[in-house]
Amino acid sequence: MSEKRYLILAEGRSRDPHYGKTARGVIRYAPDPAVAVVDSTRPGESLDGVPVFATVQETLHLEPTTALVGVATQGGRFPPAWRELLRHCIEAGLDVENGLHEFLADDPELAELARRHDVELRDLRRPPTGLNVPTGENLTIPAKIALTVGSDCAIGKKTVALELDLEARRRGLKSVFVPTGQTGIAIAGWGIAVDAVVSDFLAGAAELLVVEGQRRGGELLFVEGQGSLVHPAYSGVTLGLIHGSAPHAFVLCHRAGATEIEGYPGAPLPSLSELVELHERIALPRRRACVACLALNTAHLSEEQARTAIAAAAEETGLPADDPVRFGGGPLLEAVLAAIHAQVPVQAADH
Amino acid sequence: MSEKRYLILAEGRSRDPHYGKTARGVIRYAPDPAVAVVDSTRPGESLDGVPVFATVQETLHLEPTTALVGVATQGGRFPPAWRELLRHCIEAGLDVENGLHEFLADDPELAELARRHDVELRDLRRPPTGLNVPTGENLTIPAKIALTVGSDCAIGKKTVALELDLEARRRGLKSVFVPTGQTGIAIAGWGIAVDAVVSDFLAGAAELLVVEGQRRGGELLFVEGQGSLVHPAYSGVTLGLIHGSAPHAFVLCHRAGATEIEGYPGAPLPSLSELVELHERIALPRRRACVACLALNTAHLSEEQARTAIAAAAEETGLPADDPVRFGGGPLLEAVLAAIHAQVPVQAADH
Repeated sequence: MSEKRYLILAEGRSRDPHYGKTARGVIRYAPDPAVAVVDSTRPGESLDGVPVFATVQETLHLEPTTALVGVATQGGRFPPAWRELLRHCIEAGLDVENGLHEFLADDPELAELARRHDVELRDLRRPPTGLNVPTGENLTIPAKIALTVGSDCAIGKKTVALELDLEARRRGLKSVFVPTGQTGIAIAGWGIAVDAVVSDFLAGAAELLVVEGQRRGGELLFVEGQGSLVHPAYSGVTLGLIHGSAPHAFVLCHRAGATEIEGYPGAPLPSLSELVELHERIALPRRRACVACLALNTAHLSEEQARTAIAAAAEETGLPADDPVRFGGGPLLEAVLAAIHAQVPVQAADH
Repeated sequence: MSEKRYLILAEGRSRDPHYGKTARGVIRYAPDPAVAVVDSTRPGESLDGVPVFATVQETLHLEPTTALVGVATQGGRFPPAWRELLRHCIEAGLDVENGLHEFLADDPELAELARRHDVELRDLRRPPTGLNVPTGENLTIPAKIALTVGSDCAIGKKTVALELDLEARRRGLKSVFVPTGQTGIAIAGWGIAVDAVVSDFLAGAAELLVVEGQRRGGELLFVEGQGSLVHPAYSGVTLGLIHGSAPHAFVLCHRAGATEIEGYPGAPLPSLSELVELHERIALPRRRACVACLALNTAHLSEEQARTAIAAAAEETGLPADDPVRFGGGPLLEAVLAAIHAQVPVQAADH
């Protein structure tokens, strides 16, 4: 069997909307199938149709080939209990893909175990060597670039970029999803986790990614956004990505009804109108990106509540708004294409 | 001789206002003396009173103990010609301090040479291990924090922080300069180069620095700023530092008359008023920092021109303005203290 078949490790977090997002992203969007989830707190349940087991051993009859670390942790370190889980996977002959900041291949014990069992440890967040500052190529490639941005982390910026890319390809456009984080990399099989790059080279890494998206045939690029300009911990990553990926248009993502940064009581979100203005003001002067539309995450609302929230957001900002996961990506794709079309062309580059 | 005596390596760049800033910063502000500069393009000249020589050999009668890499390079890599210079220093028995992104101690040949000559290779930009995201301590320590920000790189953010800290200490205040870059670290002997930190931990590193500044007895902290919110390559570092260091007040630095980002034709600077507003809007909602004053770099102007530029900046923004390097730090220090005093106290922290 040469096909990749994922075993998703999501111990304790398979239902966590924030820390379990890698598991769900790969189950929904990766081209290779996920055959099982391991979470000893929910055996017998299923996650987006994939059965959940308590142990690695119980999943082996489903013939997984690759264990994927399907959780994020604050700060990106492995909880100690995870080492045993990882050892079980390696001993069962599974390759391991890991998106945390802590690199498995640098762990002498796990690396030696992997060698003995002839499996591969792939650290998705390990940055490539030779990164540098931007060269200006982000402004000269012909591809049109849309970047998802948002009011907070873990509200759907990656998912929205994936949905709009899918919809664009369904319509025959040469669209490419540009992955900038560990889950996007697991899904697409390429990319750079910009949050793992040395800060000085953040914008340079983002530039490399759009150049690579263009090289892969993209005439339209949907770049996975990261963090938020107003997030107390991750805003630097967001701004470096905004300036380095040089988008023509932003898609502003927001969890309908959210008023505070998650996990940061006392850190209120600005209004949607203020967020629109802040992004447009901070965009590169060489390529004045506008916010093309709003992507609302309404997963926690009834359909009627969702439609009301979407109408209110459109009313407040004067921009097209929708939940592209729930109601389809068509309307927002059209808004992005219209915004890109309306853009004043970039001046000839001097640098 | 146990005192540290610097030999400043500034090959080809001793007069460069941008790439030679480490040399000048250490000559002017480090407590240890600089006895010689090496720059084969300007032998016989002097740099801020320190004699310039063509070769390392010619400086040895001045008994330097430590060679300092006194230049910055775009992207922080060593030009190949530098290896020979570094070998000469090591062979002459000098320790080497290096602030580039490329680490000398990781170079097998130079590391072996250093071992043979019993000298130390100190990489000032190497981040500490164990960094993480902010904990919220930046908002709970009692120290009052001022951060220098600016319209561009290499316009004096570090120098302004140093001058205001000096002036505060002259007045008997418990002030500490908080270094966030390689030159600041060389000068103060501690700190973290935040631009060399993994992007996800940028704000966390900035938080550690203000916590350490407080631990070192600082009731008033002058944090060295980095980059600019509007710099196409380095803006991510700037925003992470703004959110992680959680200042009560900004000092906005600007090179009088500059209208474009240096080296980025077609990247116009916003007006000073727009820069003031942008910084105040993007400050942490939990600690609404205001811009206390403007620090203009007028080194390229006559005294009369300088006074005119300062008056115009004050008129445009309604804020106190001065060139603290040229005319003394008193007025801007008073503006910072007044702004901090006027700040609404932070609410009790929940997180």
